[in-house]
Amino acid sequence: MTNIKDLARMAGVSVTTVSRVLNNHPYVREDKKKAVLDAVRTSNYHKNINAVHLSKGKTFLMGVVLPFSDHPYFAQLLKGIAKQALENNYKLVLFQTSYIESRELEALEMLKLKQIDSLIICSRTCDFAMIEEHLTFGPIVLCEDLHGKNLSATYVDHYRIFYEALKYLHSKGHSRIGYCIARKSGTNSQKRMSAYRDFLHHSQLPYNPEYLMDDCLYFQDGEKVIRQIKEMITPPTALLVTSDQVAAGIFTCCQREQISIPDDLAIIGFDNEPIAKMMNITTVEIPLVEMGKNLFLQAISEQVSNKEMSAKLIERGTA
Amino acid sequence: MTNIKDLARMAGVSVTTVSRVLNNHPYVREDKKKAVLDAVRTSNYHKNINAVHLSKGKTFLMGVVLPFSDHPYFAQLLKGIAKQALENNYKLVLFQTSYIESRELEALEMLKLKQIDSLIICSRTCDFAMIEEHLTFGPIVLCEDLHGKNLSATYVDHYRIFYEALKYLHSKGHSRIGYCIARKSGTNSQKRMSAYRDFLHHSQLPYNPEYLMDDCLYFQDGEKVIRQIKEMITPPTALLVTSDQVAAGIFTCCQREQISIPDDLAIIGFDNEPIAKMMNITTVEIPLVEMGKNLFLQAISEQVSNKEMSAKLIERGTA
Repeated sequence: MTNIKDLARMAGVSVTTVSRVLNNHPYVREDKKKAVLDAVRTSNYHKNINAVHLSKGKTFLMGVVLPFSDHPYFAQLLKGIAKQALENNYKLVLFQTSYIESRELEALEMLKLKQIDSLIICSRTCDFAMIEEHLTFGPIVLCEDLHGKNLSATYVDHYRIFYEALKYLHSKGHSRIGYCIARKSGTNSQKRMSAYRDFLHHSQLPYNPEYLMDDCLYFQDGEKVIRQIKEMITPPTALLVTSDQVAAGIFTCCQREQISIPDDLAIIGFDNEPIAKMMNITTVEIPLVEMGKNLFLQAISEQVSNKEMSAKLIERGTA
Repeated sequence: MTNIKDLARMAGVSVTTVSRVLNNHPYVREDKKKAVLDAVRTSNYHKNINAVHLSKGKTFLMGVVLPFSDHPYFAQLLKGIAKQALENNYKLVLFQTSYIESRELEALEMLKLKQIDSLIICSRTCDFAMIEEHLTFGPIVLCEDLHGKNLSATYVDHYRIFYEALKYLHSKGHSRIGYCIARKSGTNSQKRMSAYRDFLHHSQLPYNPEYLMDDCLYFQDGEKVIRQIKEMITPPTALLVTSDQVAAGIFTCCQREQISIPDDLAIIGFDNEPIAKMMNITTVEIPLVEMGKNLFLQAISEQVSNKEMSAKLIERGTA
């Protein structure tokens, strides 16, 4: 069987160069890299990379925990992570959890077992204590603001963003404002809830639990929202919708039902996806791809860092 | 350092049971499993799983090659693959290639290096010969019809589906029919092209190269399609659009530009995504999640199999 010395001889390079090429090191001259790869092909050499990982204690695999890979919010985050992974010769191991805790724990377990080098958790159900327990096994990076904790994170200030969007709707004359959200639990959702409560309190507006609609994730959930609103005795006149997908679904459903936007119902979406631009939906731009890139860089860094990204309201025709 | 015998003693179970729990075997009694996991936690035991994989020659990692993870077509396939992976205790390693060949080769290389057990290629740029070269290293499964080749595949009959959709539009009085596609190359696109040419030939209709619009993937590409059509001297009166996303984008753009659908322009989408249902877009249903599930099962099987899934035209308001 061909070994690394044979390859070096065949390619006319040093053993170190062969090793670099096999391990995807950057900074190998292109002609040398080609010679090595030709030798690998000719000799049909193959190593068992698990042996290499065992000796190095590194896999160049990064875990990514996300509830749904088919939702545009997470797909955009993943896109940013994948772009940066590619530049750094990392592969991604995907944990699609549907917010089932045991699947999150599996990812943490893989970190513990050194099957992945680090872990990005885009959204979670498990307690922070569970994550904290696993920090000794490798970097874990989160997509939420956890000030004072000993791990890296990239996030936007959901409290401030939500508060400002509510103020904007209020300034346009709305006092019955509702919001649509994926789920009520989760750090980010709790921050939005605080912003909503504080806003109502400061504006001396009553709290109506009907106005908080959860389980809104996809385009088709827009239909459910409109159904719920039509059943209310005093329906909201404006909605903050934490996904442009859902906002677009609401918009489409309103067109069909002859509900005039923004006159009967004003909408502000979130993320600034292309669909929001094309449908002329007012939205809050969240730099998801950039956030994904930063999450990756934090996950390969030895340093703990916190990065807040900025979001901005994009005024269009629906609010 | 704690070893597996210590764990067995602590948990009051056999070494075999500990081994089963650590390796995620099914059929371990819940109480025994809990005892082992408690012992693992108390002792802070952790194995280096790369050593286990080295001894077993199996990683329980499956590679998935797809050009764009943020496109609904691939996101749905991935959803099916992920569902089935979960049931079989596999993790997915994602190769987001943007149709760059070297990234596909990296995935094949990982199979060769035994870093993944098998590989699902949802769509590709590389030659089939390159795939064939790697078949000895583990199962490779494709999402295209490659009759007579020695590997498994799950697919729909793109030739027949396209031909029938064209006939449908023709029966509604259209003789200037165009189509929008992600890319011109690729096995599936070539089959659609054959169907298109054969249809024109049999119906004695002229071929107009302008009517073939490629690089249409996302919702926002609908705008580009309408721009192109408006510049044509004899524009098509009907379009087959190989993604509901793009069809929805065309639909939205037409509403804004006061182009009446289906009178000025008929549209048939593909996939039957929720957006097509909500916008009442006529479409061809492709069972993507089911296809994904089957791709996974083929990738863990020793047997080579070919599975054709059926698609069906769903008549709605746009054609």
